Amino acid sequence: METQRKVILDELNGWKRTHHCAELTLQNDGQEVCLMGWVQFRRDHGGLIFIDLRDREGLTQVVFAPEVNKDALEKAHILRSEDVIAIKGLVRPRPKDMINPKLKTGEIEVVVKDFKILNNSKTPPFLIEDRAEVSENLRLKYRYLDLRRPYMTKNIITRSKAAQSVRSYLNECGFLEIETPILTKSTPEGARDFLVPSRLNQGSFYALPQSPQLFKQLLMFSGFDKYYQIVKCFRDEDLRADRQPEFTQIDIEMSFVEEEDVIQMAEGLIAKLFKDILNIEVNLPFPRLSYAQAIEEYGLDKPDIRFDLKLKDITHIVQNSEFRLFKQASLVKALKLPQGAKLSRKEIDDLTELVKIYGAGGLAWIKIKDNEWQSPIAKFLSEEEKQGITNALDLKVGDIVFFQAGNPEIVNTALGYLRIKLAEMFNLIPKDTYAFTWVVDFPLLEWDEEEKRWVARHHPFTAPKPEHLALLEKEPEKVLARAYDLVLNGHEIGGGSIRIHTQDLQNKMFKVLGIDSQEAEEKFGFLLEALKYGTPPHGGIAFGFDRIIMLMTKAKSIRDVIAFPKTQKATCLLTEAPSKVSSRQLRELGLKVKEKK
Amino acid sequence: METQRKVILDELNGWKRTHHCAELTLQNDGQEVCLMGWVQFRRDHGGLIFIDLRDREGLTQVVFAPEVNKDALEKAHILRSEDVIAIKGLVRPRPKDMINPKLKTGEIEVVVKDFKILNNSKTPPFLIEDRAEVSENLRLKYRYLDLRRPYMTKNIITRSKAAQSVRSYLNECGFLEIETPILTKSTPEGARDFLVPSRLNQGSFYALPQSPQLFKQLLMFSGFDKYYQIVKCFRDEDLRADRQPEFTQIDIEMSFVEEEDVIQMAEGLIAKLFKDILNIEVNLPFPRLSYAQAIEEYGLDKPDIRFDLKLKDITHIVQNSEFRLFKQASLVKALKLPQGAKLSRKEIDDLTELVKIYGAGGLAWIKIKDNEWQSPIAKFLSEEEKQGITNALDLKVGDIVFFQAGNPEIVNTALGYLRIKLAEMFNLIPKDTYAFTWVVDFPLLEWDEEEKRWVARHHPFTAPKPEHLALLEKEPEKVLARAYDLVLNGHEIGGGSIRIHTQDLQNKMFKVLGIDSQEAEEKFGFLLEALKYGTPPHGGIAFGFDRIIMLMTKAKSIRDVIAFPKTQKATCLLTEAPSKVSSRQLRELGLKVKEKK
Repeated sequence: METQRKVILDELNGWKRTHHCAELTLQNDGQEVCLMGWVQFRRDHGGLIFIDLRDREGLTQVVFAPEVNKDALEKAHILRSEDVIAIKGLVRPRPKDMINPKLKTGEIEVVVKDFKILNNSKTPPFLIEDRAEVSENLRLKYRYLDLRRPYMTKNIITRSKAAQSVRSYLNECGFLEIETPILTKSTPEGARDFLVPSRLNQGSFYALPQSPQLFKQLLMFSGFDKYYQIVKCFRDEDLRADRQPEFTQIDIEMSFVEEEDVIQMAEGLIAKLFKDILNIEVNLPFPRLSYAQAIEEYGLDKPDIRFDLKLKDITHIVQNSEFRLFKQASLVKALKLPQGAKLSRKEIDDLTELVKIYGAGGLAWIKIKDNEWQSPIAKFLSEEEKQGITNALDLKVGDIVFFQAGNPEIVNTALGYLRIKLAEMFNLIPKDTYAFTWVVDFPLLEWDEEEKRWVARHHPFTAPKPEHLALLEKEPEKVLARAYDLVLNGHEIGGGSIRIHTQDLQNKMFKVLGIDSQEAEEKFGFLLEALKYGTPPHGGIAFGFDRIIMLMTKAKSIRDVIAFPKTQKATCLLTEAPSKVSSRQLRELGLKVKEKK
Repeated sequence: METQRKVILDELNGWKRTHHCAELTLQNDGQEVCLMGWVQFRRDHGGLIFIDLRDREGLTQVVFAPEVNKDALEKAHILRSEDVIAIKGLVRPRPKDMINPKLKTGEIEVVVKDFKILNNSKTPPFLIEDRAEVSENLRLKYRYLDLRRPYMTKNIITRSKAAQSVRSYLNECGFLEIETPILTKSTPEGARDFLVPSRLNQGSFYALPQSPQLFKQLLMFSGFDKYYQIVKCFRDEDLRADRQPEFTQIDIEMSFVEEEDVIQMAEGLIAKLFKDILNIEVNLPFPRLSYAQAIEEYGLDKPDIRFDLKLKDITHIVQNSEFRLFKQASLVKALKLPQGAKLSRKEIDDLTELVKIYGAGGLAWIKIKDNEWQSPIAKFLSEEEKQGITNALDLKVGDIVFFQAGNPEIVNTALGYLRIKLAEMFNLIPKDTYAFTWVVDFPLLEWDEEEKRWVARHHPFTAPKPEHLALLEKEPEKVLARAYDLVLNGHEIGGGSIRIHTQDLQNKMFKVLGIDSQEAEEKFGFLLEALKYGTPPHGGIAFGFDRIIMLMTKAKSIRDVIAFPKTQKATCLLTEAPSKVSSRQLRELGLKVKEKK
């Protein structure tokens, strides 16, 4: 039980800070200063009281000493962690044996001449320290306390600085920051919209934007030439591990450009950001992989190129195999982990569970032992096939090989994620490396088995490569898009394209997508109309700001770089949003909530 | 009827701009350049074709001449206004008689060596010129064309630059830009919330924030010390003349501060903004008016101090008058318009209609003629009263005086707006003047006649003046708030306060507001809990960004400084939001739209 304290609070009454808590050094020796902040820690020692005073910048040691102000020393006995105080005092060097080289202010202390207690604190539900082990739910409920921890404070400060760095680069390049609407029209663009019922137009709804895509294109139509915005976007999806219903995008669009112009601009932006924030010089230009090559070698369209471990297509070697699984498969791929034969049965079982998440039926493997292949499947393979595989993969004793066969998408995805898992298990990923790569030459379209029609891989405004225009109607699967994704350490951090800028091509695109002219008119009528009035060639890119900051700060989750994130159930544990609303509010909107059955 | 043109479009194919359209001068004489933009105007003259080429920055004259490229000249005959072209050519001086001193590029032209047609345009529904008279509805429907007009382009560019100026000041002052949620909790704070139904938590709703008030306070609780954000806010109100359902706020909060600190910071921000954008040096500090004085002299809490015309309280002069209207009134005020006696009966009738909007029953007046008071009410006034009014208002022949008597709020509001109207009619408002004033010493509370309870004048987190704390429970009407509004030319452009930072006082405040502890717990439980853990003293301010830009650009409406605004019915004429949604979408949200009766 906490004992009740009777703390009499003081008003600021004209006191003004002179420094923050990570500022004073021996340079300030002898100065009279005023600091304000939180009591990180109090320790009574040798008739003195020592306080680590904390603000967002850091800590300063504050000393209450009888020879300077006895009353203050007396009063300071009441102080506890997280109380808020203001002190006036003199900077002086610490005794040699009390110097703390880990602290910016570690060579000085401030001896208190006068102080005020501005507020007091109950014992917080967890320690305001990085090392405190706290459940995420508790952290989110007491977010204001969680944010006091240096790890979180630093993440949010980095995020703020990164936003300024991005803006400074884009301003310098002649971009205009232009705000686009949050209350806008529901347009099916892949994900589910959040809706906002209209009161003045009952029965109608606004949608929150999944991205400002159409508005930024309209701004190009208006001649603004270069647009950007660091902007909130919204998707009402079932939340996967590291998604948020609202997220932040660095949204960029440019006129009179082709792919290379956007890519160069984007590389310059990333280079400046990493220099400004992390003092890292990234090498430009970034390497580029075609989509086909990324899938071929890494299984995923967001390849982590920090480590090698490439997938190998062995379909041609085993296409006539006795092994039914291989024989029937349209694609058979192998992934060799050098010196991986030491993996235990249990570990392999866990890996099998992993690939099942991605739709795989199981995980075939072979351990290369001294004189034999140790494997449940080895017996089905002919000597010739074994030799073929050995050559193709350059197998050595001690290696392990994993196989997937069948549906190409599952084969690639399962081995792609297995590759990353193995790299983590075997420490193959170099620390402190930022490996960027562009992925280009994406297919424009993909076949939607459910809807039995072609759908746009990016969005229906992405331009096809001019040299593939002729294929659009007859062989749509062969058409590549003028699109590009930027990948960092296996995370897609940005993506964009050159857009369609003529009405003819946009109409043709809608037709290929099976959107008839009436539907096109209803959903995108204003866009088709706008394309009639002199639209410039244009293109752009959008970066996932949360994810970039997560990678830059090495945070564990994007929730750790967002001040007030939602849980995976899209709730806010601090404010308890979403919540019930009054019947009056619903009545005004002309809405009824259906009873749950 | 527009004749069909067969225009064959070109790809950029590596062409890159070298300059924008307001850049080239005689300095560039002889250079080969590449420009891209819109055909503002084509004129054929003496076997040549002249084009005014337009981009967001301005115009450049482009010439097709037979001696330079005969084919290009031939092909250029197809060009029409708003076609999009790219040209390569040589900069040369214009002939002396064709120099246009109004244009930055008026001394040169670019003679075309080669060009591409990037897109063509139908005849737009209105001319892309400032002088074009176009209905606002047509402008909003074709917003992308409206934004091409120099007036609109300039407004949006100014807005972008202003945002950068604001950020640069605040960054310099050590503020952090921190994003707060858009999907948050419905908390009644004056206006009506926009709601967002939750799909994952059916029957529950998020609300869009009316301001990030609570989150910015929580950020202060977290120790971030200085926060800002240029942020969208939302109010579902019946839209008055110049309101938008979503608007943009410069939102600021600081810890360890008192009124003077926030006011100084804000003055510095405004000074920098006006210097950066308009090259105007504003005089600091801004004058201050108490709320009482503002109402007394100007009738409004957002006084336009660019002109004099002050209201005069004459209650004491006429309190025993024969004139019933004056005799019964708790307040009688007069407004003298010097040399206003020339106002016609019709004009006075119109002014009477104006004051009725603000609740006045009518408008009494007196014209001071050579030998008499010409007025329907003069006969009711005694000589003594006439003398008293003459002295109090320093009346001269040719003046007119208007009166209001009765309910103080109506008296002040009606005369306050009458004052502005008269100043406009008589050209009393100096052009190009920016007159700032702080209004301070607001009452903390106001009586809500409908709800029969005290309500917070600003919001329930505004701190009372410490010297009035003792009055809070017994004489709440006497308590002044630690609040301040910034007024520019009669528009409130910002407002803020020092906040309550202790749980005791916040609880007391809720009690005075008639919010019982259960209701307080439900709505603000997390805030009351947070106040237990060492909250620093803090305060802040929020500026209406749209309105500031409107005043800086002298735009006619905030709609003219917002790229994609809504109509007064809260619709977007371009995209046709809000709109119907599918029954599947409603089903997923567990909602039913009530049939209209």
